[in-house]
This record gives sequence, C-alpha cells and structure tokens, in this order.
Amino acid sequence: MKLKPLGDKVVLKQMVEEETTKSGIILAGAAKEKPQQAEVIAVGPGGMVDGKDVKMEVKVGDQVIYSKYAGTEVKLDGEEYIVVKQNDIVAIVEE
Amino acid sequence: MKLKPLGDKVVLKQMVEEETTKSGIILAGAAKEKPQQAEVIAVGPGGMVDGKDVKMEVKVGDQVIYSKYAGTEVKLDGEEYIVVKQNDIVAIVEE
Amino acid sequence: MKLKPLGDKVVLKQMVEEETTKSGIILAGAAKEKPQQAEVIAVGPGGMVDGKDVKMEVKVGDQVIYSKYAGTEVKLDGEEYIVVKQNDIVAIVEE
Amino acid sequence: MKLKPLGDKVVLKQMVEEETTKSGIILAGAAKEKPQQAEVIAVGPGGMVDGKDVKMEVKVGDQVIYSKYAGTEVKLDGEEYIVVKQNDIVAIVEE
Amino acid sequence: MKLKPLGDKVVLKQMVEEETTKSGIILAGAAKEKPQQAEVIAVGPGGMVDGKDVKMEVKVGDQVIYSKYAGTEVKLDGEEYIVVKQNDIVAIVEE
Amino acid sequence: MKLKPLGDKVVLKQMVEEETTKSGIILAGAAKEKPQQAEVIAVGPGGMVDGKDVKMEVKVGDQVIYSKYAGTEVKLDGEEYIVVKQNDIVAIVEE
Amino acid sequence: MKLKPLGDKVVLKQMVEEETTKSGIILAGAAKEKPQQAEVIAVGPGGMVDGKDVKMEVKVGDQVIYSKYAGTEVKLDGEEYIVVKQNDIVAIVEE
Repeated sequence: MKLKPLGDKVVLKQMVEEETTKSGIILAGAAKEKPQQAEVIAVGPGGMVDGKDVKMEVKVGDQVIYSKYAGTEVKLDGEEYIVVKQNDIVAIVEE
Repeated sequence: MKLKPLGDKVVLKQMVEEETTKSGIILAGAAKEKPQQAEVIAVGPGGMVDGKDVKMEVKVGDQVIYSKYAGTEVKLDGEEYIVVKQNDIVAIVEE
Repeated sequence: MKLKPLGDKVVLKQMVEEETTKSGIILAGAAKEKPQQAEVIAVGPGGMVDGKDVKMEVKVGDQVIYSKYAGTEVKLDGEEYIVVKQNDIVAIVEE
Repeated sequence: MKLKPLGDKVVLKQMVEEETTKSGIILAGAAKEKPQQAEVIAVGPGGMVDGKDVKMEVKVGDQVIYSKYAGTEVKLDGEEYIVVKQNDIVAIVEE
Repeated sequence: MKLKPLGDKVVLKQMVEEETTKSGIILAGAAKEKPQQAEVIAVGPGGMVDGKDVKMEVKVGDQVIYSKYAGTEVKLDGEEYIVVKQNDIVAIVEE
Repeated sequence: MKLKPLGDKVVLKQMVEEETTKSGIILAGAAKEKPQQAEVIAVGPGGMVDGKDVKMEVKVGDQVIYSKYAGTEVKLDGEEYIVVKQNDIVAIVEE
Repeated sequence: MKLKPLGDKVVLKQMVEEETTKSGIILAGAAKEKPQQAEVIAVGPGGMVDGKDVKMEVKVGDQVIYSKYAGTEVKLDGEEYIVVKQNDIVAIVEE
C-alpha cells in the first residue's frame, strides 16, 4: 500500500536512525532530539488548490523541515506518516 | 436511499473489516486502531464552490485518508457516513 | 405567511414523522434520532453573494443533510424552520 | 431625525404589536416570543462594499428575519433600532 | 493641531451637550445614555485601502452611528477622539 | 545604525519631551499620558505587499497616531522603536 | 548541511557576540538583551506563494528585525535557526 497525496499535499516520514555515541552506546530514535525534519515520501500533483495555482517544489527523497503542529498524522501498515501542505514545508535540507 | 453530495463534498464510509490475528482471534472493528481512512461512497460534481473552481480528484471506491475533525457525520438507514470537502482528503491509499 | 430567502439562503424544515415500531408503539419525533436531515421549503435566488457567483443546486422538496451548528432558527406561525446558506448543505438524500 | 444607512447596511425595527388571546387578554410585546423578525426602516445604497458589489434586495416596509447576534443596536429619540448588513438578513416574510 | 486620517479612516468626536430636564435640572453628558453617536471631524481620502477601492460617503459635520468596540481612541490637546474605518460607520443621522 | 523597513512597514518613535508644569516641576515622559502618538523615523518602499499594491502616504518626520497593540517593538543602540504596517497608522497629526 | 528555504521563506540566525563591558567583563550572549534581530542565512526564491507574487527583498548577510512569535525554530547540526516568511521581517538594520 502507498499514499498518493492530492493537490498540494506532501507525504512525509520522520527518519529514525540509530546512532552510536562516543562511548559506544546505541541511541534509539526516541532518545534523540528530532525537530520537524522528515523525508518526502510522496508529492501531490499541485495545480489549482483552493483557487490558487500551486507548483510543487519538493521531490521524493528530499529531507525537509516542516512547521510544528502542521499536518495530518497517518498510520498505514504499521508505519507512521505525516501529510502536510507544501506551504507548511519551510526548507529543504541540503548536504 | 443514497446521498448525493453538493459541490466539492465527498461522502465517505469508514471501513470496518474483521481481522484474524495470528492466534486466530477475530478482532472486531472497534478493537482495531482506525485512523482517518475511509472509502469514497459518493462524489459531488465540483465546479464553482465558494467562488473557486474545484475539480474532483477522487472517485467512488477510492480508499482515502482525511483530516481529523473534518466533516459532517450523517446517519442514514442505520448506516453512518461522514461528508467532507475534497480539500479535507489528504491522500488516496493505493495498493 | 411564508419565508422568501435572500441570496444563497435556503429555508429548511426538519421532518417529524410518526413511526410505528415492530411492537406497535408509535414513536414521536423527539424519541427518534434525527440527524441534520431536513426538507427544503424555499430556495433563495442565488446570484452574487458576498462577491461570489452562487448557483442554487437544491430545489423545494429536496431532502437534504446540512452541517451541524449551521443556520438561523426561525419560528413563524408556530412552525420552526432553519435557514442555512446553500454551502452548509452537504448532500441531497435520494431514494 | 432619521437614520440613513451606508453601503450594504439596513436599519431594522423589531415590531411590538398588541395581541388579543382567545380569552380576551391583551399580551404586551415582551410576553410574546419574538424571534429575529423585524421591519425594514431604511436601506443603504449598496454598491461597492469592502471590495464587493452589493445589490440591495430588501426595501422599506419588508418584514425580515435576521441572524441572531448580528448588527449594531441604536437608540434614537427614545426608539430602538438595529442596523445590520444585508447579508445578515436571511429571509423576507411574505403574507 | 488637527488629525488628518489616512485611507478609509474617519475621525469622530462624541457630542456632549447639556440638556435641561422638565424639572429644570441640567444633566451633564455622562448622565445621559450616549449610544455610538458622534460627529465626523475629519475624513480620509479613501482610494485603495487594503487592496480595495474605497469611496468616502461621509463628510465633516455628519452625525453618525458607529459600531460598538470599533476604532482607536485618541487624545489630542486634551480632547478625545475616536478614529474608525468608514465601514464601521453604520448610518448617518439626518434631521 | 538605522532601520530600513520592508514593504508597507513604517518605523516609529514615541516622542518623550520634558514638560514644565505651572508650578515649575519637570515631568519626565513616563509621567505624562502618551497615547499612540509617534514620529515617523523611516518609511518602507510600499509596492506589492501580501498581494496588494500599497502606496505609502506618510513621510519621515510626520507625527502620527497608530492603533493600540499594533506593531513590533524594536530596541537598537539603546533606542526603542515600534515598527507598524502603514495600515495601522490611523491619522497624521497636523499643526 | 544547509537549509534551502521554499517560496517566501527566509532562514535566520540570531547573532550571539561577545561583548566587553567598560569594566572589562565579557558578557555572554544570553546575558544581553537580544530583541528580534538576526542575520539572514538563506533566502527562498520567492515567486507565487499562496496565490500571491512575492519578490524577495532581503539577501544573505542582511541584519534584520523580525516579528516576535513568528517563524519555525530549527536545529541542524547543533546550530539553531529560525525560518520566517519574508513578510514577518519588518526591517533591515543598516550601518
């Protein structure tokens, strides 16, 4: 199963990576400070949304920062996603 | 009786399916975690809604995710439905 | 006396019908669960409303579902009506 | 003195009529249930209001129903009026 | 010093007139019931305000009724004024 | 250092002047009643702001009255300023 | 890693500079009063944002004043940033 967002919606997934501290202890995701950073999983087609023409600027795989409290939390096949409007994404994280 | 939604409205029905756990116990719908997933039962014609031209993107039978707290709950012939604006549907679930 | 709604307003009347249960007891309207279902009594002319062109989609006699908390309750000649904007009607009930 | 409403404003006056019950008792206005019914006393010119072109649909002498809590209460020469925007008038009462 | 309002703003001054009761007692302004009636002291030029073209309909010297709670209270040279947007003036009082 | 406001923003400074009472006591600014009067220190370029074309009507040196609670307070080089949108300025004080 | 803001978003960083008082004591950033002043770290491309054409007026390196409570706080590589919409920047600080 996968999510196909409508309009200007974007499906995000918060990344949870293991991390080894200097002393060798592995920290699970919950123990780390995770701000509003997530990976783009699926991108809506854009176009006319609420009477405004929206062009999608993010693409699948982008690491993005999104606004706190924005979006709809979704659980699908045991996985948790968050669906936000592109306008709630404030920046792409580039390496 | 059936519901014919106006404008950009969409009639949804939350699916309640039996599910057999690995140990063979059948879980009723209420015992499962049901996020905002529902099936599209009827779709409005779209067109000019509140001064904006809305094109309908969902169709009858689609499995969709909709925003928490959105919509009007309706009971008809003992069946419960929820009527939302298409803009409150965030994604279609594809298999 | 009758109500002639302005603009995109629609006059509704909640239907209260007697109903005979299987055991023969007649239930008055108040004892039944009445969701936001009502009959259309009068329909405004539509046209430019609040700067937007509204085309009326419902007609007198339609059974409709309207949004909870919407509308203005009116008592006229001992009869109770509710006046809503067409946009607060979410669906027509068809048989 | 009289009130000349601006833009889409309408001056209303709640009617208080004596009424004789079947037993011959005269009920003063306060004893009767008076919903948001009032008579139109003066009508603004309409035209561009808040960037929208408003055409006035009510005329002096119309009996109208207006939205609860809408409008500005005005006392002039000991008389009480309520000034509402035409959009807060939901229906004209016709006989 | 005088106030020159910007855009669709209007400077008002609440009138406080002495009044002799039938028994000959002079009531100061504070003892009388003063609704939102005031005299227009200065009128802005109108024109494009917040993206909308506003034409000024009131003129200096008009007695007007304005919405309760609207406006900014101003004290200048010991005199109190209230500055409102023209849209907060609901009617002109004519004699 | 100086502030260069963006768009329709205007930098204001509340005037604090010494004042000698009839008895010769000098009142500091804080002891006087200072309504929303201030001097214009810098004016933004205007132009398209939030999708609307804004023409600046105030100029540096103007004494203006602005809406209570409007604006962003700024401290720069020990001086306090308030930055407001031109629309929050209700009137210019002329002498 | 760096942040690439979308649309009319701007990435800011609050400056924390050491400061030597007259008595020679070095004040850390936290001990100083820091209003909403920050340096522009990255600027979005502007263009159509929420149906409005936005032209970016700030550039990387600008010292700016932004509205209290505006923006999304972001932590990246141990550094803290704030991402605001350009409209929440009220003025550029020039030297």
